[in-house]
Amino acid sequence: MNKPHIVILGADYGGIITTVKLQKLFSAEEADITLINKHDYHYQSTWLHESAAGTTHHDHTRIPINEIINQDKVRFVQDTVHTIDPDQKKVTLVNQAFYYDILVIGSGFEAATSSVTGLKEHGFTINSINSARLIREHIEYNFALYNNEQKKKQARLNIVVAGGGLVGIEFLGELANRIPQLCREYDVDKACVRLINIESRSTILPEFDSQLIEYAMNSLESRGIELITGATLKECDMDKIVYEKDGKEMEIPTMTTVWDAALQTNPIIEQSSLQTKHGKIEVRQDMRSLEYDDVFVVGDCAFIANKDIVQQLPQTTQVAVQEAVVVARNIKATLNGNELVSFKPQIRGTVASLGEDDAVGVLLNNYRLFGWKAALMKKLIENRYLYTLGGLKLMLKKGKFNIFM
Amino acid sequence: MNKPHIVILGADYGGIITTVKLQKLFSAEEADITLINKHDYHYQSTWLHESAAGTTHHDHTRIPINEIINQDKVRFVQDTVHTIDPDQKKVTLVNQAFYYDILVIGSGFEAATSSVTGLKEHGFTINSINSARLIREHIEYNFALYNNEQKKKQARLNIVVAGGGLVGIEFLGELANRIPQLCREYDVDKACVRLINIESRSTILPEFDSQLIEYAMNSLESRGIELITGATLKECDMDKIVYEKDGKEMEIPTMTTVWDAALQTNPIIEQSSLQTKHGKIEVRQDMRSLEYDDVFVVGDCAFIANKDIVQQLPQTTQVAVQEAVVVARNIKATLNGNELVSFKPQIRGTVASLGEDDAVGVLLNNYRLFGWKAALMKKLIENRYLYTLGGLKLMLKKGKFNIFM
Repeated sequence: MNKPHIVILGADYGGIITTVKLQKLFSAEEADITLINKHDYHYQSTWLHESAAGTTHHDHTRIPINEIINQDKVRFVQDTVHTIDPDQKKVTLVNQAFYYDILVIGSGFEAATSSVTGLKEHGFTINSINSARLIREHIEYNFALYNNEQKKKQARLNIVVAGGGLVGIEFLGELANRIPQLCREYDVDKACVRLINIESRSTILPEFDSQLIEYAMNSLESRGIELITGATLKECDMDKIVYEKDGKEMEIPTMTTVWDAALQTNPIIEQSSLQTKHGKIEVRQDMRSLEYDDVFVVGDCAFIANKDIVQQLPQTTQVAVQEAVVVARNIKATLNGNELVSFKPQIRGTVASLGEDDAVGVLLNNYRLFGWKAALMKKLIENRYLYTLGGLKLMLKKGKFNIFM
Repeated sequence: MNKPHIVILGADYGGIITTVKLQKLFSAEEADITLINKHDYHYQSTWLHESAAGTTHHDHTRIPINEIINQDKVRFVQDTVHTIDPDQKKVTLVNQAFYYDILVIGSGFEAATSSVTGLKEHGFTINSINSARLIREHIEYNFALYNNEQKKKQARLNIVVAGGGLVGIEFLGELANRIPQLCREYDVDKACVRLINIESRSTILPEFDSQLIEYAMNSLESRGIELITGATLKECDMDKIVYEKDGKEMEIPTMTTVWDAALQTNPIIEQSSLQTKHGKIEVRQDMRSLEYDDVFVVGDCAFIANKDIVQQLPQTTQVAVQEAVVVARNIKATLNGNELVSFKPQIRGTVASLGEDDAVGVLLNNYRLFGWKAALMKKLIENRYLYTLGGLKLMLKKGKFNIFM
């Protein structure tokens, strides 16, 4: 009767993989497992930019949670977390409350505010199914409006991406592939559409080396994308942006500014008694919070306080998944009174997609990949994740297999 | 060398059928035929409400003009008419000008202004491919926005149709079928969506008799459509409408008001020397204008000045097509010096669609049709039109053959 109650908050990469691993490690008799998430689906956040561009339908990007979890072992509760009280071992949701024996915090981050005037009000961010779908609809709506106005507004056909990091560039790469289709659908001349990237640093994709950056720039520019580097966004209005470059202020008329929002901590975590650093929860190398042995943290929320890991880990799927595997093992060890293992990240590399069949990537030992090979690598990584999440069945259903060009 | 030049303005029902008939009556050696239209497509205006609701793609609703005309016989010019000068026998377009020997005016009407405050600015009308596509996108955009706002706005999910005539009711019937699909696509609860009709008269579809009206009302209300009759629209704002019923003013929050715009004459016609009546060009019974033997008028633009035809003919496809057949024959007769024939309308009946598989209709001798039989009749009428327009090939490509439920 006194089964331990494991509560997992959030079905992002870290939370859902922890859940899937736990349901393999425990029988229904050994533990009660509750997964809490705002939506009844998990989504591939690495595919959101495709749903925002309209090249991958959001229903392909998301997976119903009930299709992943074993409902005999895991109870799924669709609700929103209101407060976390680690001293009372209590999680309060909007509609109910749960007491836990072990808590896993896997809730993602909120989109950040920005100091750029008007960016939060008029800009769009790619951070959920809802926000990605809205970008797709916003672009389509402006294309549809274009032909219905006596005085044609170029701002409706100019799409600006503020920030030349991974998400922004991947979004532009997809969008370049989508534009011909959009132009056919809305009877718009392709030559009238502008896709523009504004990056304050001297280059896009600064996490890559110069050879890969040059490849990426050529690929994007050959498809008509304008890359404006060394340009600082000053203002975002409903129908224009203002940026500064070489001391001069410039304007671009646009109704659509997508920005790569810097993440900020969920206020729920800040309001709890958990210690945070750089806006994340500080954890030991076994992924437990500094103060509480029964609170594990996984994914973007976790900051590993260890001298060996000097730099902050990148917020990538591979890190979240690796952490989740350790969290699940350590929960089992905790409940069995065994020794906990340490998390050791294995960064296998990074790939940036430039559209359906193009990408750049860097693997272990700085091995570089370009073009279709990098695109293939990205698909293999994604398929591998789907296999980890839901086995062969899910991989076959959602995986990307158009790998031979 | 001195072939007569026949110029046709507009590829609406009347203009396009005239063109198709002319290219059958004349060899390439006998006449030069020029068709002028703003767009490079003809569209089924009786299907526009389906494209606005999103149940039929607008590419299905339209047909490229080059697929219909015989390019050896007919020259198609995509341009907009600027002025018509019947004394000089000249038509001036935005980019060029043509002299004609025979002119056919088949240009449609413009959407009218309305005396209701704000309706022209904030309301939508179903009168072209562009405007129909915009309604579809506007509804989808509002559904997408709904889940992205902290404070949910019911106005985004309320759709109001002002006017209970044919177009408004057919649009609502289609929309009722589309809503479940929209709700799945945008994760919106179906119970939150409202479809509302506001009609100032005591009943919807007043052109039908009480038995058919009752059937239509039951069909629409059973699918959740709210029918408010005897209600006068007073104001249309960006996020609400105001109407008066039984002396009281009521409000409905809505971002989407579709109204059945009363048609007004194209200013080009009013500025020409052609005589107009009730906003149309007065024609003799042989479809020639009162003053000019070389100007024919077809479709919505024509007002037949004859004592036998006391009431104005309904602006329907069947009338336009019948007129076009007469116009083509009379052009041939004019050029050959033969006697012209008179147009005698044969009103075969009217059918109002209530969605994919439901309709009401009244045929000759007041024979009434309900439900699937009326829906079938509507499809047969439409297929017949396609056959007239482009033969078996076009009918098979665009026709509606899902006629067995």
